[in-house]
Amino acid sequence: MSRIFNFSAGPSMLPVSVLEKAASEMLDYNNSGMSVMEMSHRSKVYDKIIKDTERKLREVMGIPDNYKVLFLQGGATLQFSMIPMNLMTKNRKADYIVSGSFSGKAYKEAQKYGEAHLAATSKADNFSHIPTQEELNLSPDADYLHICENNTIFGTTYNYLPETNGVPIVSDMSSCILSKPVDVEKYGVIYAGAQKNMGPAGLTVVIIREDLVGEPLDKTPVMMRFDEMVANDSMYNTPPTYAIYILGLVLDWVESMGGLTGMEAHNTKKAALLYDYLDQSKLFKTNVVKENRSLMNVTFMTGNEELDAKFVKESAERGFSNLKGHRSVGGMRASIYNAMPMEGVEALVAFMKEFEEKNA
Amino acid sequence: MSRIFNFSAGPSMLPVSVLEKAASEMLDYNNSGMSVMEMSHRSKVYDKIIKDTERKLREVMGIPDNYKVLFLQGGATLQFSMIPMNLMTKNRKADYIVSGSFSGKAYKEAQKYGEAHLAATSKADNFSHIPTQEELNLSPDADYLHICENNTIFGTTYNYLPETNGVPIVSDMSSCILSKPVDVEKYGVIYAGAQKNMGPAGLTVVIIREDLVGEPLDKTPVMMRFDEMVANDSMYNTPPTYAIYILGLVLDWVESMGGLTGMEAHNTKKAALLYDYLDQSKLFKTNVVKENRSLMNVTFMTGNEELDAKFVKESAERGFSNLKGHRSVGGMRASIYNAMPMEGVEALVAFMKEFEEKNA
Repeated sequence: MSRIFNFSAGPSMLPVSVLEKAASEMLDYNNSGMSVMEMSHRSKVYDKIIKDTERKLREVMGIPDNYKVLFLQGGATLQFSMIPMNLMTKNRKADYIVSGSFSGKAYKEAQKYGEAHLAATSKADNFSHIPTQEELNLSPDADYLHICENNTIFGTTYNYLPETNGVPIVSDMSSCILSKPVDVEKYGVIYAGAQKNMGPAGLTVVIIREDLVGEPLDKTPVMMRFDEMVANDSMYNTPPTYAIYILGLVLDWVESMGGLTGMEAHNTKKAALLYDYLDQSKLFKTNVVKENRSLMNVTFMTGNEELDAKFVKESAERGFSNLKGHRSVGGMRASIYNAMPMEGVEALVAFMKEFEEKNA
Repeated sequence: MSRIFNFSAGPSMLPVSVLEKAASEMLDYNNSGMSVMEMSHRSKVYDKIIKDTERKLREVMGIPDNYKVLFLQGGATLQFSMIPMNLMTKNRKADYIVSGSFSGKAYKEAQKYGEAHLAATSKADNFSHIPTQEELNLSPDADYLHICENNTIFGTTYNYLPETNGVPIVSDMSSCILSKPVDVEKYGVIYAGAQKNMGPAGLTVVIIREDLVGEPLDKTPVMMRFDEMVANDSMYNTPPTYAIYILGLVLDWVESMGGLTGMEAHNTKKAALLYDYLDQSKLFKTNVVKENRSLMNVTFMTGNEELDAKFVKESAERGFSNLKGHRSVGGMRASIYNAMPMEGVEALVAFMKEFEEKNA
């Protein structure tokens, strides 16, 4: 079988050039006589890989010098605990905007460690919009405001960054990092699981403003202390070395695509094709309000569960993988992360048109 | 350059057949049209990979049905916290044998969560032996006894399993798992970072007796709760999918080598070659007592720091990688994990003989 169009919400497609390079270097990386998987994380050859990866990430995202970059494990979910354990330490209070499933989990987890305050939620409309600035009930003494910037399940994304009057914003960017330019200075912490736009599952990237790396709560496990991770350059123990290497290859590809400006153009074009079709379709629709439509995850449905199931089944037979929507939304979801080529979205839209004609 | 003999303490050599298979499947796993790295962890094709990997591990190690197998993240170091947070919950007390660096870290971390009691330590002789049963000061009411079964840095290993009168033994097997047969029923918990004998860094395998999966301490992060990990079959969030796949390939190779009985024969032969040479050498020696010599990590030295440095330098020039000993022991260390072929040890011993003749 040849490569298929994989619309998985994550782990998800990687650029073919990245996979080809990884395959070609599997038995012998750069004349080292070994695979990257086999290298001591303390060796010179691996030291260059991790440092180059950090440098490339700093360049691509424009990360200022007063921010630390960490390569950790445990996914965004471990950050749901790690963030409050390390940052909810001054006033023991933090604001949370719940705009979907993962921000809800983050909010729940934070309640273990201090006063987690619900600044706003869009639960009432099943998370089909992002709470606006006017809807926010912010605490002036919060240690931070936590947001999930792109909601993978519901297909929504922020079209603004909350005004917090100096309270640091902590953003879970798992499903939108590297998809478009970002002004890192507007954030206190950015974190993301790698398995959507960065590489294999098992790597979490954390970008944290230096002054926020403080003393954590008592009894914080050593692997969950930002101060220890910073002091040891992400090598308190063995980091996920191979996933970091793949991230480096992905960053090379992002640069070759014109950096984050190029990625945004690429992603906007892909998403527009789908949303434009949905907006004029008489069969398919999306529930997401226009101003919060995600560039990465496009949710849609016919409004008829049987027809949705038929679409999912027939699309899979035609080689479109993972188009079934999450059970909490129903319908369909096309995740079109960075590595999804334009041809994948074109082929999907062509198939949707065909399906609409047959089922009019 | 061709493949070299890599004596790294971890991450370390993987079987060539595993790397070749991984490279060949990088763009298209088993006609799925995608890399294992790109697969949704909830997909049917990946579900078969993780279930097959667990089944193979159970077969190879002979894991009884009343033990759960978990695929986690964070390395052994996260287990240093996770074990007490989940198991030091009845009498809030546990025994620790400190036989090296990592067991010392585990002991220190446990002190955050309850009464960690030092049952014995071999610090006085710089960890050149494993405390014997007679040296142990065990607590009858301990929730468990923690040991590190093979000490990577010092090159020592247990030649017995402590008699605890029913107190469960928790064993860190990071640097000896899969190296020889093990009677799982004698343990409460076995855990290991994957990056020595199992696969890439970033995967931690935990084998836990069902009745020990209880209610953790208050405020335990959700990702560190064994009960949640068990209830969700290691998929509370996205597991390190690619590393699990590589472990599956490694297990195929272990089976092809005759399972753990075959691995033990292979490893014993390799280690004997080195130790026999060291025992008769007039230049090199090892400080480890005979009955605790590790099959996996062989520490040795000349007793002359300059000569040691010369050996490390010249060995590297001859293509033997990572032979420098850990700073806390000095001298040299040859880590000869499962995937190190006999030829690698033969070539090393030949080089040592040559070096001895020249520097007599």
